[in-house]
Amino acid sequence: MKAEIIAVGSELLLGQISNTNARFISSQLAELGIDVYYHTVVGDNSKRLFETIKLAEQRADLIIFTGGLGPTKDDLTKETIATYLNKKLIMNEQALKYIKEFFKRMNREMTENNKKQALVLDGCTVLSNKHGMAPGMLLKGDKHAYILLPGPPKEMEPMFQFEAKPLLQKMLNGETIILSHVMRFYGIGEAELETKVQDLLDNQTNPTLAPLASDGEVTLRLTAKSETEEEAWEKIEMLQTEVFNRVGEYVYGYNNDSLASKLQEILSENHLTISAAESMTAGLFQSELASIPGMGAVLVGGMITYTEDIKVKQLGVKKQTINEYGVVSSECAEAMAMRIKEKFGTNIGIGITGAAGPDAHGGQPAGTVWIGIVLNDLAPVSYRLNLSGTRNTNRLRAVKFTIHYLIQLLREQGFKTI
Amino acid sequence: MKAEIIAVGSELLLGQISNTNARFISSQLAELGIDVYYHTVVGDNSKRLFETIKLAEQRADLIIFTGGLGPTKDDLTKETIATYLNKKLIMNEQALKYIKEFFKRMNREMTENNKKQALVLDGCTVLSNKHGMAPGMLLKGDKHAYILLPGPPKEMEPMFQFEAKPLLQKMLNGETIILSHVMRFYGIGEAELETKVQDLLDNQTNPTLAPLASDGEVTLRLTAKSETEEEAWEKIEMLQTEVFNRVGEYVYGYNNDSLASKLQEILSENHLTISAAESMTAGLFQSELASIPGMGAVLVGGMITYTEDIKVKQLGVKKQTINEYGVVSSECAEAMAMRIKEKFGTNIGIGITGAAGPDAHGGQPAGTVWIGIVLNDLAPVSYRLNLSGTRNTNRLRAVKFTIHYLIQLLREQGFKTI
Repeated sequence: MKAEIIAVGSELLLGQISNTNARFISSQLAELGIDVYYHTVVGDNSKRLFETIKLAEQRADLIIFTGGLGPTKDDLTKETIATYLNKKLIMNEQALKYIKEFFKRMNREMTENNKKQALVLDGCTVLSNKHGMAPGMLLKGDKHAYILLPGPPKEMEPMFQFEAKPLLQKMLNGETIILSHVMRFYGIGEAELETKVQDLLDNQTNPTLAPLASDGEVTLRLTAKSETEEEAWEKIEMLQTEVFNRVGEYVYGYNNDSLASKLQEILSENHLTISAAESMTAGLFQSELASIPGMGAVLVGGMITYTEDIKVKQLGVKKQTINEYGVVSSECAEAMAMRIKEKFGTNIGIGITGAAGPDAHGGQPAGTVWIGIVLNDLAPVSYRLNLSGTRNTNRLRAVKFTIHYLIQLLREQGFKTI
Repeated sequence: MKAEIIAVGSELLLGQISNTNARFISSQLAELGIDVYYHTVVGDNSKRLFETIKLAEQRADLIIFTGGLGPTKDDLTKETIATYLNKKLIMNEQALKYIKEFFKRMNREMTENNKKQALVLDGCTVLSNKHGMAPGMLLKGDKHAYILLPGPPKEMEPMFQFEAKPLLQKMLNGETIILSHVMRFYGIGEAELETKVQDLLDNQTNPTLAPLASDGEVTLRLTAKSETEEEAWEKIEMLQTEVFNRVGEYVYGYNNDSLASKLQEILSENHLTISAAESMTAGLFQSELASIPGMGAVLVGGMITYTEDIKVKQLGVKKQTINEYGVVSSECAEAMAMRIKEKFGTNIGIGITGAAGPDAHGGQPAGTVWIGIVLNDLAPVSYRLNLSGTRNTNRLRAVKFTIHYLIQLLREQGFKTI
């Protein structure tokens, strides 16, 4: 089954909002093993919507519409589909009753145009709207199936998930099981990763292998089709083992893991506490850690030492170290890591100092970062980055590399990390 | 001029990412007065991309592509366009040199497939990529213009804004001038704002007025058309004055201002320094400030006091205060603000403490936040928030409210803030 998703709304074409509905529905359809070949966005214009439906019928079996089901004159999705399919719109009494109650509950007068929302395509299955007024519809034609959903994500998402998806699952019944599994990498570029698995990419059939890079991370999505879940998992595991043999050192996690959630997991399991002294990242490292619930058990706190004076007077880095090596140096990063570890009494101390950009800082060009790490009684280690992004991508990259290097150090030291 | 935006990438059709590029480009084109009639998303498939180009040529004069310019075999946007237009791809020496330098700077080996990124369409204007490797292109044909942009937003956005947009502006020269101006609000909801300007919204023609809410902020976009820039500005200014008279107290800035950039401006102009002690936000407040270049002159640093022990031993909050009022209290927030101001020797001290969620904390339900602020010799003040978002929207909202309350306090105290 091939699908096309059509979002209707001039606000999308004006750039006022993103088409997050297409993303949501696509990810849901991927779980069902339904291929999406196109997303289209078209404005509140009946003629262009009509042409878009005609085109979609040539390209897809399942056509999913979002938006244009509301009460105003601009809302013309179901009207246009009715004209196109030569179907009547009929009043759905249950939906009308629901809309009336909705207004009563809100203590508002129901204007006449709101009745229009209760009109549905003749012969459709009505999808009820638990978070708004306009009902959705599923209509099976001879060759195509049509699903109409409201535009607001908070109405559309539950309607798709709990009303439309089970009906689609029924329609697909008996077809193949499709499973997906994501491997997450850090510290390796997309091109380099692909080179190392090129033969697997070239010869993929089932399971398939799809690389994706974003924000300095690379993922590989492994997708297997089979008649049973067990068989699909076996296929994925065999391929995963092969990938792991080649580039396993860069794998930090799977599926919904993030670098921060993975680090939390590792620190919690190994009962390790952490503190950090941050200069260029100015709290972003600790904030990333704190974004994960339960980090309170491992993150004690730290300091933001934005000026040289604070590094010396509050953190206790020696003035001599800064004079001799500069604030953006291996020596300063290691001293920051040691001082914060000592001061805050943690197992791990982190020091991050650098020139975020756009200007040079501490005698170093923009993008230079030094990360210092001290783990228990080991000697401090430090890592240099030469980044080429904007100020804020550099700051975020510095945080991600800090987590990456810390995970690698813990792995080298024999802690369980994966 | 009619435009169509084509995003190329199977990851979009799999629902792994949203097509935020189409939104960004659409909003930019709206500023130029270029109408966008369609967005299309197509996968990494040469045949379907070919068909999509053919179709777009029937519907638009300007076709903008994003994605598929990278080094891998999946990246086939320019190759497909070259085939479609019967154009050659030629090596651009400057882009190649830039890519080689990029790898050198990153201290990484350049694999052969990366060279492919420097191939450009014969006869195009090359758009340089300041934040990545693949250059963009603008090609003028007989009837159509084509713009090719990379997929990653951090590369695409500046390339469009600073390279492609000026060229488009030149192409449009002589047509109507369209100017847009954005007013930014904090501390007022979208519905409340709309109610206060409802008559202006109902009767708009030229200039137009468009409200938009996101992340707790509300904006109003004022757009005027005219034959001269002066006339367009006059129209906008008249409308802006009217809006200001009604809801001026909530205006914090204009256009590309952010709460953080505005705060930096105010603190710099008034020579005020700031430090912060953060608990639930764990550095996010200071990190937001540091995201603005030049913040080094006003942000001295601060502490992240994630545990009670650190609040007492490192920051110096009295154990008694915590025992009596709890860590999530007006008293604790104000003590944190006072202690950090004193310790770090700044004009302003900030204390943020709360229960980010999902669990309660310090005896307070998730979403409770106390913000303490001390300004110079004034008595400390504190503000309570009851937020209802997720852990991380609550943390971000706490940061934004802190900036908002600080700006309002500075305004009350007679500092110039707008």
